[in-house]
This record gives sequence, structure tokens and C-alpha cells, in this order.
Amino acid sequence: MIIKNGMIIYGDEFTIVRSDVLIEDGVIKEVGKNIRAPADMVIDASSHLVIPGLINAHTHVSMVLLRGLAEDVPLQEWLQNYIWPRERELKRKDIYWGTLLGLVEMARSGVTTFVDMYFHIEEVAKATIEVGLRGFLGYGMVDLENREKLEVEIKETEKFYEYVTKINSPLVNFVLAPHAPYTCSLECLKWVSKKANQWNVPVTIHLSETKKEVEEIRKKYGMTPTQLLDEVGLLNEKLIAAHGVWLSEEELRMLSSANATVVHCPASNMKLGSGVFPLRKALDLGVNVALGTDGAASNNTLDMLREMRLASLLQKVAHLNPAIVKSEEILKMATVNPAKALGLKSGVIKEGYIADLALINLRRPHLLPLNSPTSLLIYSARGGDVDTLFVNGEIVILDGEFLTVNEEKILDKFLKVIE
Amino acid sequence: MIIKNGMIIYGDEFTIVRSDVLIEDGVIKEVGKNIRAPADMVIDASSHLVIPGLINAHTHVSMVLLRGLAEDVPLQEWLQNYIWPRERELKRKDIYWGTLLGLVEMARSGVTTFVDMYFHIEEVAKATIEVGLRGFLGYGMVDLENREKLEVEIKETEKFYEYVTKINSPLVNFVLAPHAPYTCSLECLKWVSKKANQWNVPVTIHLSETKKEVEEIRKKYGMTPTQLLDEVGLLNEKLIAAHGVWLSEEELRMLSSANATVVHCPASNMKLGSGVFPLRKALDLGVNVALGTDGAASNNTLDMLREMRLASLLQKVAHLNPAIVKSEEILKMATVNPAKALGLKSGVIKEGYIADLALINLRRPHLLPLNSPTSLLIYSARGGDVDTLFVNGEIVILDGEFLTVNEEKILDKFLKVIE
Repeated sequence: MIIKNGMIIYGDEFTIVRSDVLIEDGVIKEVGKNIRAPADMVIDASSHLVIPGLINAHTHVSMVLLRGLAEDVPLQEWLQNYIWPRERELKRKDIYWGTLLGLVEMARSGVTTFVDMYFHIEEVAKATIEVGLRGFLGYGMVDLENREKLEVEIKETEKFYEYVTKINSPLVNFVLAPHAPYTCSLECLKWVSKKANQWNVPVTIHLSETKKEVEEIRKKYGMTPTQLLDEVGLLNEKLIAAHGVWLSEEELRMLSSANATVVHCPASNMKLGSGVFPLRKALDLGVNVALGTDGAASNNTLDMLREMRLASLLQKVAHLNPAIVKSEEILKMATVNPAKALGLKSGVIKEGYIADLALINLRRPHLLPLNSPTSLLIYSARGGDVDTLFVNGEIVILDGEFLTVNEEKILDKFLKVIE
Repeated sequence: MIIKNGMIIYGDEFTIVRSDVLIEDGVIKEVGKNIRAPADMVIDASSHLVIPGLINAHTHVSMVLLRGLAEDVPLQEWLQNYIWPRERELKRKDIYWGTLLGLVEMARSGVTTFVDMYFHIEEVAKATIEVGLRGFLGYGMVDLENREKLEVEIKETEKFYEYVTKINSPLVNFVLAPHAPYTCSLECLKWVSKKANQWNVPVTIHLSETKKEVEEIRKKYGMTPTQLLDEVGLLNEKLIAAHGVWLSEEELRMLSSANATVVHCPASNMKLGSGVFPLRKALDLGVNVALGTDGAASNNTLDMLREMRLASLLQKVAHLNPAIVKSEEILKMATVNPAKALGLKSGVIKEGYIADLALINLRRPHLLPLNSPTSLLIYSARGGDVDTLFVNGEIVILDGEFLTVNEEKILDKFLKVIE
């Protein structure tokens, strides 16, 4: 397959080149002008920006079901009166359909890979294979120091591990997903640590999202949440910690030394009033920082293009300094950095890398003129601008149409009338 | 004309009702179920959200020409090395085409009315009439205390006033537009004040955008920028002051008492690192607050839907409080409040109001399910979701296609290849 004459964001320096891209066996075989190899298919990309597939490093895709459920209310009220009661009602089928809807939305914003933590996670896996994105999926373990609950959580996790092993799909990867240091017992976290080594898989967890939870951990254990993770053996290169809003400089140093990853989720942190992640400090201390949308209940989208813009704007205003973070640093957080965390040879358009690519149609009023393609990508583009998407060299969306699922059917399912 | 069976954001309380809307002679004649009046045209809105046309109360539309010109650089460097040199090169024709492109983008985000300040402003007026939006347009006066320059600025302003009077279009309204207290002489501001009363027109100005300019004004005049406006006779209900990031509580009280309007521009304030507008305090003190995108050089879009979301998210994180501002307050800033400032009977879908309306197609993955239409509008919708737009009861966009201008031709003009 050849993508012809696109404006390409090439290599890990994100150089803009007008070139062809040859894809073979799911891999980027060649990037160059006028490639003349035989091809089953040639895609004209002359009015497109060709970007590396984006990686949404922290989300709960099926929470699109709860999008807009309650707004502008304090966090505890939001969780206790709206989100949790509704979640308890969710059935397996709901999760399946919610994931389909969320993945369709996410794919249209250029996402090829995502990290998800939720329950009924097998349904998430099924939908992921159908839509054709690459998921790193984890059953969200919450034991609340209840011994019996821990047994259930361990069983669910082991069951899902077996499921992933059995289906053996290149699109479904297993991750361990203890919910957070304040919702999981020490025993739970230690079990996760042991299994992470045994199974050699990533561990994703919520870390220091709110000031309150950090204070609770300090009070309960006499240490920071990061010290606690170190204590239970989770502070290493397998760790993908979401949020990190209230991480201290000392914790950032520890995470950097351990080659762990922190996932910044600006929209969710802003909407829930959690705080501003110390991005500049984290990057300067060498922390591997990725980007995530979190769930649509607190975002309220799964739009990684809008998330990149927001990540940049938030830092600029927080520091009163428009130069505090560069567009290229933001783009790395959605590509190179999470790819490293997941051990994927993706996130870069370059010979030998996995063919995870998105084509953005520049023939749109908000994407012209072409003063700077990188700027258009970070600051002007939005979900829906991606009209062609490749995962593992397979076409998921072509010229705006899904080739993998029937999008109309999915939308019909959700377009219920409110009288 | 009848809009049939839409989900309508009705009245100034923004109640959600499923209804028809009857439009006659540019006015909303009736809102109700099963309207059976004779109609030239019936638009099926059964999968649409029908919202009041949005008002972009501060922008420089043709600056889309400079979109992405320079990113992530300090403000003074950005202005002096990139924006100003490029602006000096802009010809009348550039402004005309830039405005066409910008208006097409803006219309697709639901904007029916906008306030613009720029040079070659007659070209902006021409493009506005062609696209069919309602502009409040002002020639941006900058005299830098240079007597000769002031004469030129006055002449340009008077010339444009005559032009607007002569063309007598319902779509083009004249406003006075002195650039800012730090770029205009006292004499200039006093002339504007006199003319505002004589011509009975609004005055738009940049006010307290950066900390630096506020300090300069204090040093030079020994008063706050708002006191200065009061001094020259501009502090009244005609005033539409953009930004207001560094307004003190005392200034907010003065603006409130005077029934003046402040236009919050969150994206621009964030991107340029200007600061956080004290929105909660302004609203609590009774200030009439509107919303604007500013120009695309610092936004980098003219997307009022994304602007509403950002306005809300910014306050929530700045106050670490998700309840600090309500969706309805944000929506008023884009509708009711600026309509009041401009003396327009619009911004509300209700019998007797101007038929400025936008239809958002909900059959989109990021706009489902329909837990809350208002939440979808504020937090999930984005430019491009509007597929039908009415201004003064005239159709500008129908089912995604512009009826007024040839969008393809405009895009062609700007889609130049970068080699």
C-alpha cells in the first residue's frame, strides 16, 4: 500500500516532508519521493497531513455512556450521586456498545492505540478487535481493604489474563490495573507487583490525582504515594501512572530514575478542578510523560487532538509564559513517549516502524492556510479531522468511512429521543 | 419556514424542549409542538439540537491568515518578529479573502454575530455581507501618541462610518474601535467618546490583557486602565472591553455600575500566557461578561464551541472547584450577554426574537448518548458540528453546505502546497 504525496510529520524530530509512504506487512517500509513499488492500493494524500497514530495513554472508553450525566458539581457529589450509581447499573452489553461508540469517536481523532482500565473488560476487548484499534486493557481492581473483594479482583484479573492469552490478538494487550493507592490494599498492590514481573506486563494505576487522596496516603502510610508504590515494588519502567497532578519534585525524581511513565490528563484535571500537572518540571527532570483523555464522563470527549491543544494552553497560562512548552514536546507526549512506555515500535513515521498512521484532511476552513503543519495539528485540529486511519498497516477508516464496523448502526443504537 | 421536531434550547433559562420553530420575516414567530402554518420550507431537525446563534464578541477574523505563523515564543517576540511584520505586508485583497475563510470557519461553529476590529475593515464588511453573518465592525485605531497618525486614524474611522451608512446593510454595523489605552492617546480616546455619543454606537477596545500594560498605564497616568476610560468618558453601557485579565475588584465594580461589557477570551489568554480572567468575581459583581475567540493567530481557531468549553475548564482548574461556574452561565456569555451589549433582540430562542439559530447534528459519535443536551453543547461539541445556520431568518448553511458563498473556491485559494 502506498500513501501518495502527503505532507508527512517525519521521524522523531517531526520534520515536515512531502513524500510517499510505502506500507508492507503492517510496517512502514519506505518514506520517500515518487515510490514506484507495486501496490494493491494507492491513497492520494496530496491535501492531507500524515501524522503518527496517536496514543491515548489513559482512558475508560466505555464511560462515554456517562457523558454529560452530571456537570458542574463538586467531585464527591459527582462520584457518589451520579457516576457510581449509574456504573453499578451497567451491564456487559452496555460496556460493549459504549466501547464501540467511544472507539469510533477516538479513532476519528487519530488514535491508534489506547490504555484502558474498567470492568467487564472482556467486552472492551471484543469491541477493540471489531473496531480494529490497539488496546492495552486492564481490569480495574478495587478492593477497599476488603479481603473477600480482593479475592474477586484477583480472580477477575486472572480470568482476563487467560482470556487475552487465549484470543492471542495483535490488537489486545493485557495490562494490570490496580485502581489507585487509596482504593487498593497493600496486599493487592503487592500481588500486582508480583504478577507484573511474572507475566512481564505494564501496570497502570491512578496516582496523585487529587490533593485529598495524597493527604490520605500520607496520613495512613506516612509516605508519599510514589514512595508507597516503591515500597510494594511497582516503581519501575512498567509503571504507567495516570494524572500525577500533586506529585512533588522528589516524587518526580523517583519516577524519572525508575523510568516510569506519568500520563497527563489536562481536560479531566481541569473539569474536575483537580489541579495543574507540573509538566515543565516533570519533563525537565526526565520523566517520561504521556497524554490521556481520561473517560468522557470527565472530559467530555475522547478527542486526543483537542487534548494536545489543551495540554499546551494549560501550561502556558499556569506559568504565564507562552514559551514554557513547545508543540513538539506535546506531540511526543501523544506518540513517542507512550510508545516507549508500552514497548511499541510506533509513534513515529519512519522506516521500520509499525504502520500506525492518521491522515488529516487539510481541506477544512479551520486548517488553512498552511503556515505551519505542526501548529495546525496541535492548536487547530480537532476530532473528526482524521479521515483515514491505519493500525498495524490495516485500514480502519478510509476517506471518512469505517471499513471495520458499521458506524451508522452504532449511532442508531444511541440516538434515542428525549421527549 | 419551519424547523421541525428539533431538540430546542428554549428561552433565557435554556430549557430543553422538543418542538417546532416557525420563522417569519426574519423573526421567531412561534415555538411549539406540531406547528401547522403554511411554510415555504420545512427542515427536519429530529436528530438536531437547535441552539441560539452564538455571538463572538471579540475577534479579528482575517487574522486566520496568520494562523500558526509562530508558536510557543514569548509575547513581545511573537508580535515584533512575526505578527506585526506580516501584518504590514497584508493587502486589501488578503484581508478580503482572509475574512471569507475565517467567516466560513466561524459559521460552522454556530456563530451568527461577531464583533471585529482590524484594518482594511471595508474588506471585512464586504466579506461579511457575502457570507451572510452579522458583523459589528470597527477600524482599529492606533495612534501611539503621534499627532499625524491620529489624523489618519480619525479619517479612516470617519470614512468607514460613511461607508457603513451608505451600504445600509442589516448585516454590517459600525463600532468605534480604539485599539487599547496603551496604544491610543488621551486625545484619541476622547475623540472616540465624543463620536460614540454623537453616532450612538458601541465602542470596543482591548483592556487589561497583560499585567505589563496595566503597570504602564498606572505609571503613566497614575490610575487604572478602567479609571482612564472613565476619565475620557468611555465607561458606559456602550463599552465592549476585550480580555480584562488583570482587572481589579474595584475596576470590576466600576464596569458593573456602568453597565459596560467585558469580553473573556480564554484561549488567547492561555496561549499567550496572559493570565486567568476573574470570571467568577466579575459575574458575582454583576458585570455583563461576553465571550470571544480573539484572532486565530493566538487561538488558533474561531471556534466558539471550543471556546465555551475552555472558558468553563479554565475557571474550574483555576479555582480547584468543579462547581465554580455553571454551563448555563457560559452559554449566556455566548448569547444573551453579548446580545444585550449590542442592543440585539437575539441570543435566545423565543417568540419575537431575531431568527439567529444554529442546528447541531447529534448523529455524531462524540455527541452521544443524549444524557444532557446542554452538556453536549458546552463540553463535547466543536466547530463543524453545526450543519445548518440561520441569520436574520436567512439560511447561511443548509445540511452542511453554504448557500451564500462557494466554500470550495475559498478553500482552493488557501490550499497551497508546501514543498
